[in-house]
Amino acid sequence: MDDDFLFMTLLYDFYGALLTDKQKEIFEMYYLNDYSLGEISELLDISRQGVYDTLKRAESSLEFFEEKLGLVKKHQEMVKKLEKVKNCIKMIREKEKDPQILKIIEEIAHEIDELNL
Amino acid sequence: MDDDFLFMTLLYDFYGALLTDKQKEIFEMYYLNDYSLGEISELLDISRQGVYDTLKRAESSLEFFEEKLGLVKKHQEMVKKLEKVKNCIKMIREKEKDPQILKIIEEIAHEIDELNL
Repeated sequence: MDDDFLFMTLLYDFYGALLTDKQKEIFEMYYLNDYSLGEISELLDISRQGVYDTLKRAESSLEFFEEKLGLVKKHQEMVKKLEKVKNCIKMIREKEKDPQILKIIEEIAHEIDELNL
Repeated sequence: MDDDFLFMTLLYDFYGALLTDKQKEIFEMYYLNDYSLGEISELLDISRQGVYDTLKRAESSLEFFEEKLGLVKKHQEMVKKLEKVKNCIKMIREKEKDPQILKIIEEIAHEIDELNL
């Protein structure tokens, strides 16, 4: 899967809810279920050009939302920082002997995991 | 400032970038700079009804984005979890004696602060 393709599916994870139902349907068929434009055209009984135009409009919208809100960029930065936190937690688990402090460390680990990033 | 008013300004922090320039201008005059509809009408030379309609459309858009993306809700949940992490860090700072572990704890505190939530 090339980078542009992967980036588009990431944008969809963040902003897909803002697309129209038709855009979502065609986007998912093309990007998530690997149908070709021709196959989508046949299955939905829309012209190939219609499928292409809807897909392009969906992609443009997703790119517009990222340009305005930058959620994917912010999310990726957040994931990096939390990876560092997880590494720190791992180091403390290996060094720390005090069970009281280890318990607090496990609470931190739990909250960080619950962020679901 | 009542809760609805506060919530609207919070929605604007998250989704304001998706409004039109005119919506942003009127929203900011009303919500952030405390102008009345009449004052905005005079200053921008638009009918009071025009100001009202633009403001209502802006508010509806912001509510639509939150309904679809839920960023404010997610953000508030994240802030709560990170407050718990910060409390844990505070407890460890008070109990821990090992300077090596304290150094790792400060790294965790730094990454958490850098999340800028």
